[in-house]
Amino acid sequence: MTDDPRLTPLAASLPPTVPFVGPEELERRRGAPFRARLGANESLFGPSPRAVVAMKAEAAEAWKYGDSTSHELREALASHHGVRAENITVGEGIDGILGNLVRLLVEPGTPVVTSAGAYPTFNYHVAGFGGELHKVPFAGDHEDPDALLAKTRETGARLVYLSNPDNPMGTWHEAATVERMIEQVPEGALMVLDEAYCDFAPAEAIPAMRADDPRVIRMRTFSKAHGLAGARVGYAIGPEPVISAFERIRNHFGMTRISQAGALAALRDTEWLGHVVSEVASARERLARIAADAGCTSLPSSANFVAIDCGGDGALARRVLEELASRDVFVRMPGVAPLDRCIRVSCGTPADLDIFEQAFAPALAAARK
Amino acid sequence: MTDDPRLTPLAASLPPTVPFVGPEELERRRGAPFRARLGANESLFGPSPRAVVAMKAEAAEAWKYGDSTSHELREALASHHGVRAENITVGEGIDGILGNLVRLLVEPGTPVVTSAGAYPTFNYHVAGFGGELHKVPFAGDHEDPDALLAKTRETGARLVYLSNPDNPMGTWHEAATVERMIEQVPEGALMVLDEAYCDFAPAEAIPAMRADDPRVIRMRTFSKAHGLAGARVGYAIGPEPVISAFERIRNHFGMTRISQAGALAALRDTEWLGHVVSEVASARERLARIAADAGCTSLPSSANFVAIDCGGDGALARRVLEELASRDVFVRMPGVAPLDRCIRVSCGTPADLDIFEQAFAPALAAARK
Repeated sequence: MTDDPRLTPLAASLPPTVPFVGPEELERRRGAPFRARLGANESLFGPSPRAVVAMKAEAAEAWKYGDSTSHELREALASHHGVRAENITVGEGIDGILGNLVRLLVEPGTPVVTSAGAYPTFNYHVAGFGGELHKVPFAGDHEDPDALLAKTRETGARLVYLSNPDNPMGTWHEAATVERMIEQVPEGALMVLDEAYCDFAPAEAIPAMRADDPRVIRMRTFSKAHGLAGARVGYAIGPEPVISAFERIRNHFGMTRISQAGALAALRDTEWLGHVVSEVASARERLARIAADAGCTSLPSSANFVAIDCGGDGALARRVLEELASRDVFVRMPGVAPLDRCIRVSCGTPADLDIFEQAFAPALAAARK
Repeated sequence: MTDDPRLTPLAASLPPTVPFVGPEELERRRGAPFRARLGANESLFGPSPRAVVAMKAEAAEAWKYGDSTSHELREALASHHGVRAENITVGEGIDGILGNLVRLLVEPGTPVVTSAGAYPTFNYHVAGFGGELHKVPFAGDHEDPDALLAKTRETGARLVYLSNPDNPMGTWHEAATVERMIEQVPEGALMVLDEAYCDFAPAEAIPAMRADDPRVIRMRTFSKAHGLAGARVGYAIGPEPVISAFERIRNHFGMTRISQAGALAALRDTEWLGHVVSEVASARERLARIAADAGCTSLPSSANFVAIDCGGDGALARRVLEELASRDVFVRMPGVAPLDRCIRVSCGTPADLDIFEQAFAPALAAARK
């Protein structure tokens, strides 16, 4: 395929690679469905039944554009977090919001800092706007706040990304550590604190909400604990001068009406959230046992997935992944060493984990051959 | 509000204005709901009942990310239009696709051509990426292909926008005229043919599909005739080198699973589409009668709305709009003279048009005082 000559030089320079190949596409390529969908950190426990009712009720109303300001949802989120609605922007998942955030702050050559092996979609957006990405290694399977800060100072980065709990390892830092990092974000930089998995973490991992702190913007989502990945609702909480800038560039009528209704109902169903968090905790324990039974260690996780150390290098873990796929189990793995000694398994229902358990030891044995 | 100093110069230069204020926001500002929602060219006849069933069925599956390639929908659209799936990209409404198209082709200073008074959201995206927008006037309430082409040649524009049928006047050009324009798009330019309203137009307004023509990209949507504005599903048909470039920048998991299911079911329900098109035709006739009964002319429309000439200038039409709003009727109007002598009224059900009919003559009389 020859590039179209009308593309901007930046667009022409971008690689055709995408951050993630989805499970449906993998199924088409392999010509068979998966029996266990444990690779995308979706919530196999499903959305709140009340959210399902709300979405069904809104289906016949889909002829109307959604409220372009997501007013009701933003008000509910503001009340939930004890911030003002002006500190919140709602968008098409954290992915969509990250894209707009990068667009607002990054132009060709702007330095940006993240961890090697951290969220690839953030990197995709940085590359997409021509930013210059600087990566620091994980330290002991944790993102490394001090190294991130040092690289931010060294490069004069405009954005520095931290996820807590982190993906793909599932580890976490204490709120005090994150707060210390926020305190040290240099002038001219903005910290992106991706808390997609925060609902699964202990309370002491989550810094208090100080929405007007100019040094940090926090990303939250309905895709994980709320079980609404396919409804595409994320939001960011941050200082008003940054949040209001989204109004200048975002797709104002981009939110679907059904998703707005679903997210609002999900937010109110704290009972379901508690149920999911409890199921996830049980699933994490079981995944650790499955790993141990096969002679593997696993990392303590505060997310809805567990990183299992296959006991070798990235090539071995990749073979385990392939052996699992040949047994109809979809999981993913980190992209860089030494994280890529692990596979990353999403928490599933007992039935999902039965399938994984049955497949894992044989897959490991086959991979080691 | 002081700008955040970390914004790019481009982001900092953008105005805080938005293309459209939605009806929910207008209702909040006025403190009362509208009785007739006739301003956003939504389909008041609703989505296909089969699409509603499909969306309800998918609600409980919303824990899964949507298929990032919208494979099934793209295949169905390809078959429907007699093109290849590689010629189609699906996105979050035409608005979302226009944003990505502009991002791919426009950088600061790139010239772009459209008509004064044409779709504001296209202009919003061009401004958002720093493009230099050149406008030519409508000619006789039609977009003017010759003037658009002349301006494209004169400015060396990268993009030139034509909607057919056009919004906000509802007029249309014959396919032969549009094809003649496509033939003359200069080297280095791409024509954006926005056909959001094509389902309501006579067959002779729609050029044959030649997806690999490098000179044009065509925009279609499920928001209008299919009644799924709130589900956010648009698509573009164009040459593969342009379509494939979207893969480098789009939000790959940005489509909601429920909307994908709804659009697929809507596409298959040709009976419902026929019903809606027929209802819209009746509503257009009735709107023309209501206008005539009040002593106004209206424009022949091939869209799902009618432009009614209030018989004065923009100030009069704006007062009519306000008087209608005070009677709980939401309509919109064109933004520039001489189009702004009109108000633009969406086709509604007989009950909606009863409310409009009751309100229009008194609103007109009050506005003229």
